[in-house]
Amino acid sequence: MNLTVDSGRMVRELERLGSISAAPPPVVTRVVFTEADLRGRKFVKDLCEAAGLAIREDAAGNTFARWQGSDPRAAAVATGSHIDAIPNAGRYDGTAGVLGGLEAIRTLRSAGFQPRRSIELIVFTSEEPTRFGIGCLGSRLMSGLLDAGAGERLKDRDGISLDQARRDAGFSGDLETVRLQAGHYAAFIELHIEQGPLLEQRGIPLGIVSAIAAPATLRMWIEGEGGHAGAVLMPERRDAFLAAAEIALAVESAARLTGAIDTVGTVGVCDVFPGAVNSIPSRVRIEIDVRDIDGARRDRVLSDIDRAAAAIAGGRKVRISSELINADPPAQCDGTVVAALADACKARRIAFERMISRAYHDSLFMSRIAPTAMLFIPCRGGVSHRPDEYASPESIAQGTLVLAEALGALAG
Amino acid sequence: MNLTVDSGRMVRELERLGSISAAPPPVVTRVVFTEADLRGRKFVKDLCEAAGLAIREDAAGNTFARWQGSDPRAAAVATGSHIDAIPNAGRYDGTAGVLGGLEAIRTLRSAGFQPRRSIELIVFTSEEPTRFGIGCLGSRLMSGLLDAGAGERLKDRDGISLDQARRDAGFSGDLETVRLQAGHYAAFIELHIEQGPLLEQRGIPLGIVSAIAAPATLRMWIEGEGGHAGAVLMPERRDAFLAAAEIALAVESAARLTGAIDTVGTVGVCDVFPGAVNSIPSRVRIEIDVRDIDGARRDRVLSDIDRAAAAIAGGRKVRISSELINADPPAQCDGTVVAALADACKARRIAFERMISRAYHDSLFMSRIAPTAMLFIPCRGGVSHRPDEYASPESIAQGTLVLAEALGALAG
Repeated sequence: MNLTVDSGRMVRELERLGSISAAPPPVVTRVVFTEADLRGRKFVKDLCEAAGLAIREDAAGNTFARWQGSDPRAAAVATGSHIDAIPNAGRYDGTAGVLGGLEAIRTLRSAGFQPRRSIELIVFTSEEPTRFGIGCLGSRLMSGLLDAGAGERLKDRDGISLDQARRDAGFSGDLETVRLQAGHYAAFIELHIEQGPLLEQRGIPLGIVSAIAAPATLRMWIEGEGGHAGAVLMPERRDAFLAAAEIALAVESAARLTGAIDTVGTVGVCDVFPGAVNSIPSRVRIEIDVRDIDGARRDRVLSDIDRAAAAIAGGRKVRISSELINADPPAQCDGTVVAALADACKARRIAFERMISRAYHDSLFMSRIAPTAMLFIPCRGGVSHRPDEYASPESIAQGTLVLAEALGALAG
Repeated sequence: MNLTVDSGRMVRELERLGSISAAPPPVVTRVVFTEADLRGRKFVKDLCEAAGLAIREDAAGNTFARWQGSDPRAAAVATGSHIDAIPNAGRYDGTAGVLGGLEAIRTLRSAGFQPRRSIELIVFTSEEPTRFGIGCLGSRLMSGLLDAGAGERLKDRDGISLDQARRDAGFSGDLETVRLQAGHYAAFIELHIEQGPLLEQRGIPLGIVSAIAAPATLRMWIEGEGGHAGAVLMPERRDAFLAAAEIALAVESAARLTGAIDTVGTVGVCDVFPGAVNSIPSRVRIEIDVRDIDGARRDRVLSDIDRAAAAIAGGRKVRISSELINADPPAQCDGTVVAALADACKARRIAFERMISRAYHDSLFMSRIAPTAMLFIPCRGGVSHRPDEYASPESIAQGTLVLAEALGALAG
């Protein structure tokens, strides 16, 4: 096949999608079901329709854009990613896989390719955990790893439930209908920026992901005792923030003490109440992220953190309650799909490396219901989740070309 | 004199003032120049006018309610406190001294007392540092310890300057005119809840303050490097929040290591950016409060904190910048005014104890321009800056009676 990616068009579309944000450029803030997210969705759907794809949206807002194959009954081959973005994020995380996936489909069509299996582009709802505290809402529901009751159970900081938020955004069906059966897709490939420095450091254009690290999220509430910062003497204090500080350092220690480079632990959220300079903090909420490619080792770190928190609670006479928001197993990618990507790289004479994904993705959950693999492109300095996140047009075009080649091969 | 305090009226007025709040009862949130603060000011001014006092407001919004004495040229005797309240505060901090001061004046008038010196009730602007990061704005300006340039310099979190905020609230004059000369007042007494547990624990009805601890406020910005919480390996991180956690623990250590029970150190504010569970914190702002009755010892603690922060910045490869918002000397109360309060206690057969104030007050700054003392009443459990802050009607009435007696004696 003579495949030609229109990288100029794709970069322009990435820039336009990047400008759809709740914050001024170059900052991208596009939290699920906010006005910016809904405008982003419309932008992508309009492009898909212009490309001749048929749109379906499920009750969770997952969007499917389908190119009908010659055998419509055969399980489709899918690609896709997400367009939601955490506060103060950049332009490529998720969007490279959505607009790259669309460009791959357009590339195959322009080349006159006629697929036997249908090819679908999926835009997943809320890969980022920003609003409801748990990531990959769309793919979790699709894979059955999250039950439909989550619609009422999950609430944002303002107490708005997932069900209310999706209905307000126009997605009103029963969440039960979101689930797809294993075998629904013949294959799933997610194109994504690496979010790490390895490809760039080694000068290798593409990475084929063989496994995805196991993520977990723990939320803790620490209740101490408030009071006047001048009047309450040091020995009488039960300062919730000092307990939180010790827990944050314990998270770091627990992650480092496994001795494995693949273990990471982070406290990214710390809300202090009442938050006045002359008040001893009475209550603190923190959110802890722990990941590892080894699920059992990750769980031992979680236990270490819980044990440390209990000791800190005793020492500082504060009450700590915790909630495990998610603790997902790692994923192994599918050999056939990995081989299709490797073959595509070889056909196009593009060097690649097998690697693991430390960040998690919708692929982690898609792997439960479909043969899945991921394709990574380098990003500058390995940085993501920041406004200066960057992937070059050449890298995006190479990834898109290999994706198109692999989708074509898998769709037969 | 036959003085009779109408404690029922005063408690009703305290309750009504407590209900003027930006948050639902029993929470009091009345930040300076917000709508709740302006309604609270109007409530107090209406009461003062109903009591026959003449109102003056200065360019900072400090309010003076004057009972003209028989010798209007003689320096007046003043009492007063503040009505602004930090978020999630209670009903008595400041307000007991404002409405108690008013009730003391009404008590003297009802008894037919004719003062030689005028007696003034002062309601100080923004004793709390909530909005502009620095406490006692009104009395600092009055005493000349804060220059008029602060009007443009000090800004709230939304970037609104003190000048803009006071003008929006209707106080538009030149801040230079707020300053009062030493000798303007013959005496100043502030009635206040103790904000500590000693009076209650010892069963003593009143405290006469002989010194006020020296407060200081330090603001720090910590700049690390953000990134994806899954993708950036632990050894490569420059996590701003972990540096903040270490600094908070260093503040606690520095305050404890003086060995003096009078040293306290607190981190009450910690804002984490971007504040997402799957992002490594790139930037953190903390606010540190340090106090001691010994000003030199307090300054050594500030130096210890700066040294610790520099070491932490080196260890974690983050940049730390700090700004000393205020570092005020301690105050000694005036012997004559203290004696007037002690005589009043004895005349009314109410037991008292001499004590120091660990919290700071407008009295700290009034002591620079007037012979000053403070009168403390017990508060339940020693707690303040919380919705369950409480002082009994009996305590408030006893404090008000002694205040009236002392004001009468000083006004001659």
